[in-house]
Amino acid sequence: MTFQSSPVGNEISCVMHGLDEKVLKNNEMLKNLLLEALEQEKFTLLDNIFYEFQPQGCTVLVLLAESHAGIHTYPEHNSLFFYIYSCRGPTDGRKTFEYLKQKLNPKSVDYKERTVIVKQGHKLENRE
Amino acid sequence: MTFQSSPVGNEISCVMHGLDEKVLKNNEMLKNLLLEALEQEKFTLLDNIFYEFQPQGCTVLVLLAESHAGIHTYPEHNSLFFYIYSCRGPTDGRKTFEYLKQKLNPKSVDYKERTVIVKQGHKLENRE
Repeated sequence: MTFQSSPVGNEISCVMHGLDEKVLKNNEMLKNLLLEALEQEKFTLLDNIFYEFQPQGCTVLVLLAESHAGIHTYPEHNSLFFYIYSCRGPTDGRKTFEYLKQKLNPKSVDYKERTVIVKQGHKLENRE
Repeated sequence: MTFQSSPVGNEISCVMHGLDEKVLKNNEMLKNLLLEALEQEKFTLLDNIFYEFQPQGCTVLVLLAESHAGIHTYPEHNSLFFYIYSCRGPTDGRKTFEYLKQKLNPKSVDYKERTVIVKQGHKLENRE
């Protein structure tokens, strides 16, 4: 597909702690939840890969026109890692994160977000 | 597969600037380079997806036993975004980054790295 990305992207990386172990073992549900979360923020989902580890844990990676997103689960630690890098501007991905958080209801979240500028010399003030 | 991840992982996220446009348009070479870089750091590559945008740019995502890695290219800005999250300890992924950097020879790199702890209450001092 044709896609013109902005020089300014956003990266969100977090660990959700204190999740229900049963929820974390429901791999299919988690995969669908991630796809649903991305769709409601109107990302363009181009492809995905899904892997179930033994005896537990899974990884879902989603290739977006706007970059990529993924989750990794740790049922043994009651936690889930969520990542998204997307290039529609400085707050991109927040709705997806909030959707997941609302549905999964973690006890705490270690949340990091940063602006990524792929055009050298481009200043955030000069948003395009 | 069976995989027991450590509670301590490492995340590297960077933009390499000032890259040769011809190199950035060689999607197949870049895909193979990422796979090669991951292999020399002895990651377990389980699956990958590859997407070529029109008129240029590509995304490669690699699902690892140890989490995931990816690149997104921006030939229009002479830049490449590289990401890896892996869970073998605090410096994991650095060899992969260094390998890519050596082969691609960017003029500058906007590099970020952080420790990710997926087990609540786990302290970095108590490395397992």
